[in-house]
This record gives sequence, C-alpha cells and structure tokens, in this order.
Amino acid sequence: MPKLSQKGELMPSSPIRKLVPYAEEAKKKGRTVYHLNIGQPDIETPEIMINAIRNFDMKVVEYSHSAGILSYRKKLVEYYKKFNIEVTPDEMIVTTGGSEGILFAMQVCLDPGDELLIPEPFYANYNGFAVNAGITIKTIPSFIETGFSLPPIAEFEKAITPKTKAIMICSPNNPTGYLYSKEEMESVRELVLKYDLYLFADEVYREFCYDGKEQYSAMNLKGIENNVILLDSVSKRYSACGARIGVFISKNKEVMAAAMKFAQARLSPPTFGQIASEAGIDTPQTYFDEVLAEYCERRNVCIEALNKMEGVFCPTPSGAFYAVAKLPIDNADKFCQWLLESFVYNNETVMLAPATGFYSTKGAGFDEIRISYVLNIPSLKKSMKCLEEALKVYPGRTN
Amino acid sequence: MPKLSQKGELMPSSPIRKLVPYAEEAKKKGRTVYHLNIGQPDIETPEIMINAIRNFDMKVVEYSHSAGILSYRKKLVEYYKKFNIEVTPDEMIVTTGGSEGILFAMQVCLDPGDELLIPEPFYANYNGFAVNAGITIKTIPSFIETGFSLPPIAEFEKAITPKTKAIMICSPNNPTGYLYSKEEMESVRELVLKYDLYLFADEVYREFCYDGKEQYSAMNLKGIENNVILLDSVSKRYSACGARIGVFISKNKEVMAAAMKFAQARLSPPTFGQIASEAGIDTPQTYFDEVLAEYCERRNVCIEALNKMEGVFCPTPSGAFYAVAKLPIDNADKFCQWLLESFVYNNETVMLAPATGFYSTKGAGFDEIRISYVLNIPSLKKSMKCLEEALKVYPGRTN
Repeated sequence: MPKLSQKGELMPSSPIRKLVPYAEEAKKKGRTVYHLNIGQPDIETPEIMINAIRNFDMKVVEYSHSAGILSYRKKLVEYYKKFNIEVTPDEMIVTTGGSEGILFAMQVCLDPGDELLIPEPFYANYNGFAVNAGITIKTIPSFIETGFSLPPIAEFEKAITPKTKAIMICSPNNPTGYLYSKEEMESVRELVLKYDLYLFADEVYREFCYDGKEQYSAMNLKGIENNVILLDSVSKRYSACGARIGVFISKNKEVMAAAMKFAQARLSPPTFGQIASEAGIDTPQTYFDEVLAEYCERRNVCIEALNKMEGVFCPTPSGAFYAVAKLPIDNADKFCQWLLESFVYNNETVMLAPATGFYSTKGAGFDEIRISYVLNIPSLKKSMKCLEEALKVYPGRTN
Repeated sequence: MPKLSQKGELMPSSPIRKLVPYAEEAKKKGRTVYHLNIGQPDIETPEIMINAIRNFDMKVVEYSHSAGILSYRKKLVEYYKKFNIEVTPDEMIVTTGGSEGILFAMQVCLDPGDELLIPEPFYANYNGFAVNAGITIKTIPSFIETGFSLPPIAEFEKAITPKTKAIMICSPNNPTGYLYSKEEMESVRELVLKYDLYLFADEVYREFCYDGKEQYSAMNLKGIENNVILLDSVSKRYSACGARIGVFISKNKEVMAAAMKFAQARLSPPTFGQIASEAGIDTPQTYFDEVLAEYCERRNVCIEALNKMEGVFCPTPSGAFYAVAKLPIDNADKFCQWLLESFVYNNETVMLAPATGFYSTKGAGFDEIRISYVLNIPSLKKSMKCLEEALKVYPGRTN
C-alpha cells in the first residue's frame, strides 16, 4: 500500500471533532445536548435568498465566470459601499466559501516555509489551510484579561523574521468575539507598512457588532492598499453557510492576476450559491436589526450567566457570536469530554469547544472554552444552568 | 509592495484563456464565433435536478457534513451499482467539483517534488493543481496516429523514479476522447501493482461512450483496491457544471481519513448543488439515451467533415465529447488566434483550443487542435465549413 504524503499525515483534526462521538453517545442515551460548540447559526436565511433559489430558471446549470457572476460582483460593489469600502468588480474573485479565499491568499502570497503572523487564539481551520499551503503560522499571544485585545506591536516585531510575509487579522474575531478598534487597526497598518507585509483581513462577521460599535475595515487603512487582501463570506452574514460563497478582494493587480489563475484552475464558484447571494444583497435592514438584537440578547444572557458562576471569567465581546471563558478547570479537553460522557443535569448536557484548539502555543488555553451563542434564549439559559451545575461537581475543578 | 509567492508566479494560464480577448473582439465586430473550445455542454440539465432546486424548502442553508450529505452518498451507492462499481458511503467524500477531488488526491498522496505520471496530451488544468500541490507532472507521450491509445508500459517504466508516486488515467479522455480498453486498464493495473503507485482515475465522462462500447472503471481492477482513487463529477453527466459537485472515492481507509481532514478544513461542499445532484441520480435513462444519440451524431458530423478536409487527420474517439485533430498548419496557437482575429466566412468564425495546452513536452501538439462538439448539429456543420475554408487560406498552411 503506497505511503501517504506528509501533508496527509500532518493535516490537523480539531479537538471539537474528537468530541463528536461522545456527543452522539450522549444523544443515544436520550440526553439533550446543547451545541454551543459550532459556528452554524440557527437564524433563518433571508427569504429573499431562498426565493431566488426557488425561482431558479436556467435551462443549463453552467459554469459561471471564474471570478464569479459579473452581476453578483456588481451588487457586491453596492454592498461594500454601505460600509464605506470602495471596490470594483475587477478587484473581486468570488470564492467557494471564505475558506477558499484564505487558501488563495496563502498560496498567492507565501511560499512554502514562509511565515504568517496571527494573534492567538485564532480560528482553528487556519491551521489546516497552512498545512495545505505548506506555510508556517507564528502566533502572538493575546490574553483573556484584556478581552483579547491586539497584542503590543513590539511583540509582533519580535516575531518577525526574513520569512515573515503576512499578518492575519480576524475582526470581529472568531473565537474571541473581540472587535479591533480603529487605533488597533492603525497600528497594524504601521507594522504592515514598516515591514512591507501582506495583511489578510478576515471580516466575515462584519455585521455582528454590538453596543453601537462598528467594524473598522482593513480596506480603509491608507497607504497599504496593495498589501491588503479582504476575505469575506456570506455564510454568517445571511446564515447561509451551505451556499459556500465567499469573496477574495484586493486592489493589488498582481495579486488579483495570480489569484485569478488559481480561480481558473478550479473553473468556477458554485452557481446556485451565487444566485442566492446576489439576491441576499437586497436583504432588508430589518432582517439585520432583528438578528443583531437577538444575538446581543444572547450574548448578554451568556456573559452574565458565566460571570456569575464561581471562578469563571468571561470578557464581554463586542462582535461575532463567540465568547471565550476561563473556567476553574484542570484541562478543557477533558472537561468538554466529561460533560458529554459523564455529566447530566435534568437529562441535559452541553457541548463546548475546548479553547486549546484555537491556540498553537503548547498548554495555552488549557482552562478556556469557546461558546458559540447560536441557540435561542431558552436553550442558552438551560445550557448555562447545565454548565454551572457541571462546574460544581467536575472532579478536575481547580478552585 | 510585497512579492508574490513562486506558486503565484508559476501558476499556468491556459492557451485558451489567451484567446478570449480575440474572441470578444471578433464578436464586437458583429461576427458569429462558434465556440468549439470549451467543455461547457449546451445540453439541458435534467428537469428533475432543476425541480429539486425549485422545491428547496430548508429554512436555514446549513453546512452539510464535510463528506457530503449522507442521503446523497447513499444514492451515489445506487448510481455506481448500475456500473458494477461497489462502494459504500464511507468510501466517498463529496467534493466541490471534480477539481477539488483532484487536488485532494495530489495533496493526500504526493509530497512536494513527487512525480505523477500522465499520458500526454492531458487535461490542462491538471497543471494548475500540480503547481498548487507543489508536485511534478511527468508525461508519457501518446500519439494521434494510434488514436491516442495507452503508451507502451515500457515507456511508463522508463519514466519511473524513486519520486514517482502515482499515475493519472482519464477515461474517456479529455482532450482526446480516447476510451481505454479493459486490456489497457489491466496493463495499468500491473504497473500500479509492480511499483506500488497510486492510480488516480478521472472518470467524469463515464456516460459518454459510443458505438456500443462501455467504460472499464479503475475501481474494477482487482488487487489494487488500496491504490485507486476515483475522481468523479456531475458536471458533464448532467450538464450541470455550475453545481460544482464531484466525489472522491477510495477503498483505502488511510487515504480517506487523510482526505477527510482536508474536507473538514474547508467545512463542506455546496448544499444546493448536492440537493440537485441527489435528485439527478433518478434522471430517467431516456435522458441519457437522447443525449448520447445527439453527441454520437455530433461526433460523426465533426469527424467526417474533418477527415474530408485536405491534409487533416482526426481519429474517431469512442468517448467524451472531444476530438483532437491534426491540421496542415505551422502553429496551432497562431492559427487559433488568426481564426478569431483575421478570418471570417459568411460573417462567422470558429474558436478552437490549440492542443499545445494539453502537452507539456515542448513543441508537441503544435499542429493539433481540440474540438469540443458541444454545439447543435447545424452550428457544428457551419463551424466545420468555416474551418475548411480557413485552412484553404491560412498563411501558415504547411502542405
């Protein structure tokens, strides 16, 4: 039997995946498992998108343009204008989910062995894309005590080597929910300019900002227009993860030309998803108002409940629909498994994401978990109660 | 401005792409351009697939399972059974087009620098995936005189080095339309067994076999079950290229486990396309009977017309909807550009794919073009007439 490639061996599997069989086992025993572990929102996709699909009227489901359907890219220009982001259809390549855009960015800008700086904790799937592209992720720690704000620029500078080619900033952040301020983005700009790095801006949670705050886009940083690649997706915006539609945006013509060759090799992004996404741009503002009000309340319910639990600390995130909490536990992986395997309260339990999967520094995040508040308020309240009771009896409790 | 990666620089752009501006220019002048250059069929997608999309009734467009919707994989088991291919849902990962499956195969099985053997000419986009995966394609020439039949196994053996890890066989073939016989597949089997190679089988044209012939699948080669990866797609089968749904199939558990990690990193294949493709499996046989009769007639029209032209030779392919013809010309790239730029007959011209793009051996295919017979019979007849007239007056004619 022939050997696998090293990439095949090295490709990481996330700690959440390892928990799935335990969750299935718990369900087999008749228990309710509240899934706070995933980024799949329960919010309905806008009707306007579903209707566009239901009205599909092509006779032949053709390849689209490799950069995406032109009318969709033109609509995206309008969409970004609302956020004061000025782009043209030529500065966009529609991708198969945000995932493909991230991979294009890594492949177009970094050679195997080159380094990408990312504040830690970070979205675990970046690891997979890095193995895929053969590049190295170097992390700069951010800390729960400061709500996971941007690490000091000096820390980034310490990590820079001749192999450093890019920085990735995800704002609002998955997994922390942290929303980088204009000032923080400006200091990233200085760094990018000083070392002539690429800036990969993962802004898929743009709409999800709370307390009257707004996202400050990397696209609006002056003087680094040729360095920025914006990575975006309809998955969270319209609760349409299955459409698999994202977009890769850059004003750098060389980057766009190279990315287009990758886009052409895979022929085209999905036609159905593009049709739905194009319609989605006319989603009424009331949809977002309602969704945001709902998420904000969910956030408040979780954060308040968490901080009331003895020994628990959870900073209040300003964006996305995630929060990272510090728990009085010995080991988050063990704790999350124990919740599914050995704990039950009113025949219910909760599935959490151990934060260890979001750190690459060994040992970091060992007492932290990520919560996705993608359930309705009654379920969230019950799952918080579950967690509270669980912490009281967990054998590995530390204080 | 930061530098691009080497991959970004190296990524090939096909010769067909270079012709696109010339075709656009010809159209601006009011000329009809017959597109015989692309693999986008004009055949209608089965109604059953369009209806499945029009009846879409989910409230939330969710991620599917990373390996694809289970009910779809179960239906695929039925589909393959009809071709005497025995597989289980666990032996399949639904991919975003056949393209993603090819990339998974290269990444899971080959390390950067490793070699993949392919009979030449071959599907040009393999080059892009190879750059993407950092692997090397080594070609074994096949010849128009023998209709592009399998090169002698001794030629493959000469090309084998310690870095050779896999062979790619596309049958029925793009670009040649050649259908490998059972005997040829058996000799590939011997080679795979002797050198313990992976066999990547691109069988996306399975349905398109003429003259009563049938495809012999690599999945039915005995004793190399752990070596074979079947790469498939709904794009051509149902004229549904835009659905972007393929499948990666292997009985090798290690390969499947590694490929699953790549599949998980990109989260899921497109949900809409999977729904359409699942419905597509119930496409009535009459659809295929009609499509095949149509393609067979188109093939006959083209081949007959081509071979009647002075100095032209085109073997009769038994499958797919492509043919490679040898023309009395000095340079296929120049000729194809000239057709668009300088030639007109009854205010019409024809766009062909220079075969050079399908060869990696320098100079090979210089007097060959690929025809995709994806137009209706009247258009095909007119385009053959165009080509005939063009050859009479082309300044670079060689005999």
